[in-house]
Amino acid sequence: MPRRSIETLIFTSEEPTRFGIGCIGSRLLGGVIDPAAADQLHDRLAETDPTAPEGLTLRDVRTAAGFTGSLATVKLPADYYHAWVELHIEQGPLLERDGRASQNEEIVLGIVTNIAAPASYRYIIEGFGGHAGALLMPDRSDALCAAAELILAVERHTLAANAASHGVDSVATVGTVAAHPGAVNSVPSRVTLMLDIRDTNVARRDATMNALHADIREIEARRHVAITEDPINADIPARSDQHILDTLEDVCKQEAVPYKKMVSRAYHDSNFMARVAPIAMLFIPCRAGVSHRPDEYATPGSIALGTRILARTLAVLANE
Amino acid sequence: MPRRSIETLIFTSEEPTRFGIGCIGSRLLGGVIDPAAADQLHDRLAETDPTAPEGLTLRDVRTAAGFTGSLATVKLPADYYHAWVELHIEQGPLLERDGRASQNEEIVLGIVTNIAAPASYRYIIEGFGGHAGALLMPDRSDALCAAAELILAVERHTLAANAASHGVDSVATVGTVAAHPGAVNSVPSRVTLMLDIRDTNVARRDATMNALHADIREIEARRHVAITEDPINADIPARSDQHILDTLEDVCKQEAVPYKKMVSRAYHDSNFMARVAPIAMLFIPCRAGVSHRPDEYATPGSIALGTRILARTLAVLANE
Repeated sequence: MPRRSIETLIFTSEEPTRFGIGCIGSRLLGGVIDPAAADQLHDRLAETDPTAPEGLTLRDVRTAAGFTGSLATVKLPADYYHAWVELHIEQGPLLERDGRASQNEEIVLGIVTNIAAPASYRYIIEGFGGHAGALLMPDRSDALCAAAELILAVERHTLAANAASHGVDSVATVGTVAAHPGAVNSVPSRVTLMLDIRDTNVARRDATMNALHADIREIEARRHVAITEDPINADIPARSDQHILDTLEDVCKQEAVPYKKMVSRAYHDSNFMARVAPIAMLFIPCRAGVSHRPDEYATPGSIALGTRILARTLAVLANE
Repeated sequence: MPRRSIETLIFTSEEPTRFGIGCIGSRLLGGVIDPAAADQLHDRLAETDPTAPEGLTLRDVRTAAGFTGSLATVKLPADYYHAWVELHIEQGPLLERDGRASQNEEIVLGIVTNIAAPASYRYIIEGFGGHAGALLMPDRSDALCAAAELILAVERHTLAANAASHGVDSVATVGTVAAHPGAVNSVPSRVTLMLDIRDTNVARRDATMNALHADIREIEARRHVAITEDPINADIPARSDQHILDTLEDVCKQEAVPYKKMVSRAYHDSNFMARVAPIAMLFIPCRAGVSHRPDEYATPGSIALGTRILARTLAVLANE
């Protein structure tokens, strides 16, 4: 019997879905989000599902689902956990590549030393609409052409940040775009898009955003459009605890399991659990680095190996 | 009593809506679309309304609505009409501007000499998706970045066509865009967009499309994406009948109504009625050139004046 209890946590709403931000559970456990503010998060389900009711809050939805307690009681005390370890697929292609390159095509695990700092923003580009045939080119303030320039500016500044640091630690993505009114024969008057930007270095992320802001001002002036930026979240990076990292390494060596130390460029519940506990993460390979797609896949062998190393690590940590 | 009957036609589906192409009624009357092909047009309502049934055809929908006859009987004989005149708002800002610049802020009407040649295309850009944090920039084939370049290429080539001809007769618009999977933290793997391109000169329109095709091949090669082009329609321009134009001018002069001869850059049912009848169109001003928007507006005075000139013109033509 271990000296310390081993607890399994299952978080809901880890992905940024109907309430606009992700990791709502771990943000509350880690005290990263104010409980009253969390309760007032706006349910955006009606934006994509016309049959869903509008104007609901997180409080409305959780109460209707039977979760009627106060969110103010959720935050954990800072010394509640001795150690926190999260097992996850890599969501990138590096471990699979390393495994394929190894002598016996072994399964290579990832020991996560840092979790990159994610931030996300919503942009609304307001131009001037009209009939696609009758509104002549010199009279246009096409919101979608302005949005296209913004999308390419995001890519250009991110590639420049990587080039300047001779690295690959800056990533940025425009993942959603919606044009209004959205008809083949209407000049788009308004475009909404969402930006996801991550970096292991917060200063570099901020520099990329500053460069983007300069471009936005230039696009606004040249194209006679108005671009508003609405920050959704901007979190700080998390760093793994050295003792847990050492324990993970020791266990891998004892089990003769190859591993690499790596940065997590996706963010995880561990980002927020890091506020109240020493954390680390363990990655297993996934096919072609694919994630957030129906064809996301990890082999049963990888899952079993990751689970075994996690269990052995927890056994060591629970007996300290 | 006039020598000839005066008929009023009300067309349905003039706008390109659930069946992908516009002017279905006048295309059938003018014999521009094969009746059997029209009946097999795919109902796209389910693409935007999740509650709509999928897989329906125009034949299914019209039959359910009680229109059970054969479309093969719709085409008009070529000598059925002596003259065809369509009254419409301009859908552009020119007549309003001319009216405002006139001495007594009169209402200026438009007599349409040509209707520009519209064409529309659907593009599907296939890249490679993945997690917005973990899929690093050098490993990306972001379909939305490729789409942004295509959108800007459309604009660039259209501006170049106008510059080369010292005119404003080339217009092109990307009016719809959809990114798949459409999540803030997913790199877009597929983007679908629709292009509307119009010109008074078919050869110039074709030259713009050729320049776009060269850019598409370059984007495909550089970004490792696949771009497919699906033509929706590509119609030829229509020219108004000189005798009807003369009659419209005579009536305006008799009524002391200011008018200008102009090109229609939007397309109309008259484009297709031109296949079976001599046609012309009469435009009235609309506020700020706005059309296809909830705030589309024409003054009661403009509507009354346009109707009066139309009625006087039809009276002359019907007594020939």
